[in-house]
Amino acid sequence: MPEIVSSGTIRLARGASATGPNILRQVLSLSMRPGVISFAIGLPATDLFPADDLSRAAADLLARQPGSLQYGEPSQLLKAHIAGLMAQRGVPCTPEQVFLTAGSQQGMDLLAHLLLDPGGQVMIERTVYECANGMLRKFVPEILAVPNDAANGIDLAAVESSLEGGARPAFLYVIPTAHNPLGVSLGLEARRRLAEIARRYELPVIEDDAYGFLGDDGADGAGGEAPAALRSFDDRWVLYLGSFSKILAPSLRVGWGIIPADLLPRLQALKHSMDIDTSTLSQALVAAFLEAGLLPDHLERIRAAYRQRREAALRALAECFPTGARWNRPTGGMFLWVELPPEVDAAELLRTAVEIEHVAFSPGVAFATGGGRHADSCLRLSYANLTPEQIDEGIRRLARAVRRALGQS
Amino acid sequence: MPEIVSSGTIRLARGASATGPNILRQVLSLSMRPGVISFAIGLPATDLFPADDLSRAAADLLARQPGSLQYGEPSQLLKAHIAGLMAQRGVPCTPEQVFLTAGSQQGMDLLAHLLLDPGGQVMIERTVYECANGMLRKFVPEILAVPNDAANGIDLAAVESSLEGGARPAFLYVIPTAHNPLGVSLGLEARRRLAEIARRYELPVIEDDAYGFLGDDGADGAGGEAPAALRSFDDRWVLYLGSFSKILAPSLRVGWGIIPADLLPRLQALKHSMDIDTSTLSQALVAAFLEAGLLPDHLERIRAAYRQRREAALRALAECFPTGARWNRPTGGMFLWVELPPEVDAAELLRTAVEIEHVAFSPGVAFATGGGRHADSCLRLSYANLTPEQIDEGIRRLARAVRRALGQS
Repeated sequence: MPEIVSSGTIRLARGASATGPNILRQVLSLSMRPGVISFAIGLPATDLFPADDLSRAAADLLARQPGSLQYGEPSQLLKAHIAGLMAQRGVPCTPEQVFLTAGSQQGMDLLAHLLLDPGGQVMIERTVYECANGMLRKFVPEILAVPNDAANGIDLAAVESSLEGGARPAFLYVIPTAHNPLGVSLGLEARRRLAEIARRYELPVIEDDAYGFLGDDGADGAGGEAPAALRSFDDRWVLYLGSFSKILAPSLRVGWGIIPADLLPRLQALKHSMDIDTSTLSQALVAAFLEAGLLPDHLERIRAAYRQRREAALRALAECFPTGARWNRPTGGMFLWVELPPEVDAAELLRTAVEIEHVAFSPGVAFATGGGRHADSCLRLSYANLTPEQIDEGIRRLARAVRRALGQS
Repeated sequence: MPEIVSSGTIRLARGASATGPNILRQVLSLSMRPGVISFAIGLPATDLFPADDLSRAAADLLARQPGSLQYGEPSQLLKAHIAGLMAQRGVPCTPEQVFLTAGSQQGMDLLAHLLLDPGGQVMIERTVYECANGMLRKFVPEILAVPNDAANGIDLAAVESSLEGGARPAFLYVIPTAHNPLGVSLGLEARRRLAEIARRYELPVIEDDAYGFLGDDGADGAGGEAPAALRSFDDRWVLYLGSFSKILAPSLRVGWGIIPADLLPRLQALKHSMDIDTSTLSQALVAAFLEAGLLPDHLERIRAAYRQRREAALRALAECFPTGARWNRPTGGMFLWVELPPEVDAAELLRTAVEIEHVAFSPGVAFATGGGRHADSCLRLSYANLTPEQIDEGIRRLARAVRRALGQS
């Protein structure tokens, strides 16, 4: 035992004291109850992970390259493959512009450390991936929340008018493709305009493209490709973040940035200061998967499965959900956004949905920047990690809970 | 190609503009030249990684648990094993107090975000692990550099006098066991006194114990254990950081903290904001290795090999190094600290040593807090990743370079 059991209040940094919505932890614990069909957490499909291919690659690497267990420099092979992949997103780049990260969340955190002074100003969509707001919180920033919606994405007139009015944020964070949570993608014209705004106002834009390779045109059936990445419209002011979490496996913890070369030394120093390096083993595993040419077929398999899951969700919503509820057709990705009549409190609905109907989702308030109440009647349905049968059953359960909340049961 | 090739200066955050010594990148590139025997980088022994055991564990996990490729909650099994391990360091703790990280560098960065306001005051040894200073740089802190030396470690009278004089740092960062770069360990009495100082001044102390399981009493032969961790002398003010990088493999990117329970929710939120989670696959691999009972024998194997490598280094130093050079007997770990006569500039010596003698090391200036010049004539020799034969040959080469620098050749 310690010689002295001690006590006292440890003073925390201001950024560590800033808290997010409590709802997130509640959602997590509610959604994990046995028997619950959960649309709550943004998980890619566990049943589609290429476990056998990764297992073979791991055995081969560990037998031949003990150095893959050591610290190491970023993999040149992986960088070269990523530069090749970026062509699919319309982004020409060289391996030297590729910056390897432990996932796109780390990429985002690194870019914030690179660009944002504590207490500084940032611009972010008012309905957005909860961990982007969570990441910003420690900087105790001045937040400029920009309107967005599930039909059109970010409101570019609002961005422009804010900048025109004198706002000078350190950056704008945006998810242009298969948005989390809204499922929407910006059209080509909007991308061109956003890039133009970035240039005009010298506004760094962090493009989170975590779902870019899973984007499509939103049509049923085979589905066309997503629009080219925002970075293809400006190679200076748009800082691109990609990830293998959604197209390969989250636990590899490998993502990347495409970053102007003059920023790379500072970014490397920041990365080093945070976690030394990205796992050399994971880098080598991803590189081996890409080198073996396995990604195109794997991507096609996930994209087809996610399209099937999306259609199952849309079919069940159309069949079961009451009048007054609205939803969009996601342009790929993993998420569907449902807007219920304003009298429904989605956080309250979650509790009854889990307890009575054994179905869970994420309430809109979890994604509301700066504690906004505009999404209080909305739900995010994450459909990627459920079978079409589970999705159908889950949405039927959810429809019953919604009817009850509307007094229609 | 992008429609418009753009330009302009992107404004960086103040913390990202702060730079460290250039010497580090030079050391890295010099030490990696072909034919160079490198004592430069702090690498554990590649030849001792348990690659076969990890390969078997990976194959088993990927076949049976596809969820090990998914996002996930921190592994309860791993936390339980770590709580068990901590008994070896004299620290009683429960699995609930274990906080999993992507290595102890991340643990350090997380604790700094938890405790340190930007521009705030921190206390750190004046000769210390370069990445601790690198980590602090982005906070642009006020640094209180505390004297330390290779004979006794941190100067506790100086710590006390600074606090007595009114200093109130957010924390003190210290490596009490098998210090990087000094190779020294604080004695039991000094640990007791430091814990007492922490309590009296309510000073959070971050104990970096990355080398704790590799510590010994510095004696030749079998060698006794290292002293109990600093945290065993105070369970409130001492925040403990451990790592599997030096006792298993760096590329797993798994470490841990032992942290007062009331700080854990804030720390979890910070961790989530930085990289979502620590690789579930890596967590499961480490847990499987521990569950199979493989760590004790593996640890004994590394400890024996590192002792043998230390003795080879000490023998060669005694045989070849000129009068006026001094070094200590490391109490375990991976590092030996050599002090040359003040007329030798170690950074300059590095260049001639690599170019003429094909041997590399880290010059002391790399470890000097706040750009101090007190270590300009010192060298850190990292001996863990070389065979006794390479160590012997490397130190003979280095001795020739030193003699030349002293005008004795």
